[in-house]
Amino acid sequence: MEVDEVVCLPRLSRVAVCGGTHGNELSGVYLVRELLKVKKGVMEKEEEQEEEEPLSVLKVLSNPRAMQQCRRYVDTDLNRCFTHATLNGLTSGTVPYEMIRSRELNAMLGPKGRSGAVDLVCDLHNTTANMGLCLIAYSDCDWICLHIFRHLQRKMPDIPMRYIHFEVSNKESYSLDSVGKHGFAMEIGPQPHGVVRSNVYTAMKAGVQHMLDWVCFFNSGTLFEGESVDVFTMIKHIDYPRDSETRNITAAVHPHLQDRDFCPLHPEDPLFQTFSGETLRYKGNEPLYPFFINECAYYEKGIALSLARKRRVVIPTIRVQTEQEQAAHVQELASEEEE
Amino acid sequence: MEVDEVVCLPRLSRVAVCGGTHGNELSGVYLVRELLKVKKGVMEKEEEQEEEEPLSVLKVLSNPRAMQQCRRYVDTDLNRCFTHATLNGLTSGTVPYEMIRSRELNAMLGPKGRSGAVDLVCDLHNTTANMGLCLIAYSDCDWICLHIFRHLQRKMPDIPMRYIHFEVSNKESYSLDSVGKHGFAMEIGPQPHGVVRSNVYTAMKAGVQHMLDWVCFFNSGTLFEGESVDVFTMIKHIDYPRDSETRNITAAVHPHLQDRDFCPLHPEDPLFQTFSGETLRYKGNEPLYPFFINECAYYEKGIALSLARKRRVVIPTIRVQTEQEQAAHVQELASEEEE
Repeated sequence: MEVDEVVCLPRLSRVAVCGGTHGNELSGVYLVRELLKVKKGVMEKEEEQEEEEPLSVLKVLSNPRAMQQCRRYVDTDLNRCFTHATLNGLTSGTVPYEMIRSRELNAMLGPKGRSGAVDLVCDLHNTTANMGLCLIAYSDCDWICLHIFRHLQRKMPDIPMRYIHFEVSNKESYSLDSVGKHGFAMEIGPQPHGVVRSNVYTAMKAGVQHMLDWVCFFNSGTLFEGESVDVFTMIKHIDYPRDSETRNITAAVHPHLQDRDFCPLHPEDPLFQTFSGETLRYKGNEPLYPFFINECAYYEKGIALSLARKRRVVIPTIRVQTEQEQAAHVQELASEEEE
Repeated sequence: MEVDEVVCLPRLSRVAVCGGTHGNELSGVYLVRELLKVKKGVMEKEEEQEEEEPLSVLKVLSNPRAMQQCRRYVDTDLNRCFTHATLNGLTSGTVPYEMIRSRELNAMLGPKGRSGAVDLVCDLHNTTANMGLCLIAYSDCDWICLHIFRHLQRKMPDIPMRYIHFEVSNKESYSLDSVGKHGFAMEIGPQPHGVVRSNVYTAMKAGVQHMLDWVCFFNSGTLFEGESVDVFTMIKHIDYPRDSETRNITAAVHPHLQDRDFCPLHPEDPLFQTFSGETLRYKGNEPLYPFFINECAYYEKGIALSLARKRRVVIPTIRVQTEQEQAAHVQELASEEEE
């Protein structure tokens, strides 16, 4: 019997759990508030007590002003403010609140792309779409994120769960979770913005707990077996039909498509129903997987739904680096940064 | 066999259909926009062509500024600005936009409580609560509203439908529909605010069409038989548990209660689940009917749910007044107004 290659990865010492990046996505707001109340360490596994370096969990309320107004954002979408250009560009005149806040968060959790950044950012979101629990990441080969995803899938078998991949470079990646060395958005729906539903809150709480558990297992040397995972890679967005003059939408998502996130959409399937009652069909030439179907916040972004291709990704067996390996790795990173 | 007494009521010549009173309740916004596009008269029954006075249907977008921003309101809740005091009081300093707009709407559709007011106001709303289609009115003896309700129930058997009664005097009544001689809010959910769901839009469109059909039938002399109707009279509101210092909520609606609008809530039934996982129970001393469970817009009003008592109301047989009866009635009203 052949022994699979084991990939050894650096220890995850600092994890950030962020809520309220969008001020009206309330599960994350109330969960992070709750975590902030809980005595430090209670959320972490007891095993941790025996280790030398306990896991540091930063709990962050990302956009307090938007939370106070129960709005997605005050001036501009915070979760689009973490590109290299926005974080490092010159500013002049009146700077939008969220641009200031993104730099504060980058100082706290980053700097993005540098060795001082936290090891893992888990940013909590809600959607009005019927998406269950999704991890959304910029990489389809981040073994940490993919193993966490598999762990959550196993621990929460009653919750539909998917891994979504947005193919964007680290420099161009725009969301808060891109500030960490590893990171993902944990997106749960359906839940109206401005509302907290107990079932959605409870699923998010369990998801965060299992994620932190996994990190503790990983840090304490547990070997995680390789396996394969379905990854949904975003291919394109589709906008609502709109009036050419007013830009108002002229149709809603078709009732046959509404709430069918991640069910394959075939050419000629119903896509929209106009407000006068006409059915408009999907004109693509291959079946794709729709998600973010009828997400509230995306009306203004011109997105009625997104379409993904599904792929099976083989993830290797992983374990944490030994102290020796870790020391070598740190030296390697430092010399990279000097270059 | 005894012949029931027939109540004869004035003709309904002018009906207003209003949407966007709350700018983020999108079914009404898009339905009224659609009605405004449709050639005048197409929505009305063909029978009407033969009559002398066709039905006049005013289609009103109530809060254009809030609609543009896709928010409930800009300065203050428009649908609380139609009390006698707010419409007629003196104003000074910076007047909230919605107070100005309520007076414009009162000039257009009212004046409230006067003979010049439109005969019927149907104001379109959405809720995040699982309430199906509700007519909400200030009277449990407005035979017009109650007969329209029964007509809709019969015509739309697949949609759960209830009649809600808020016991408030005409002077104290605060919502746009109180401006008409008769009026109700047509409230449909669940739909997240800022989202339009095809099924909810379609139900609202059908509801409005059947309401206008009924008015045409009534005006053309149809006799509507008396019968009995279940009326839910609002008894009290219940707020979320809150932190005494921050006033933040500390619990969500219990998962066993969420989405169970109009199912009886018994003493000791689960009411809330705190964010730490504890169940809080209903401490009332009689079973009541919950509605507006977890409505998004009511967090700021301190309402987690409302409770109603259910009662069976007998409504009489009605028909429109003859021209002679109508003339006598008009004279009566005029002399009342002079007094």
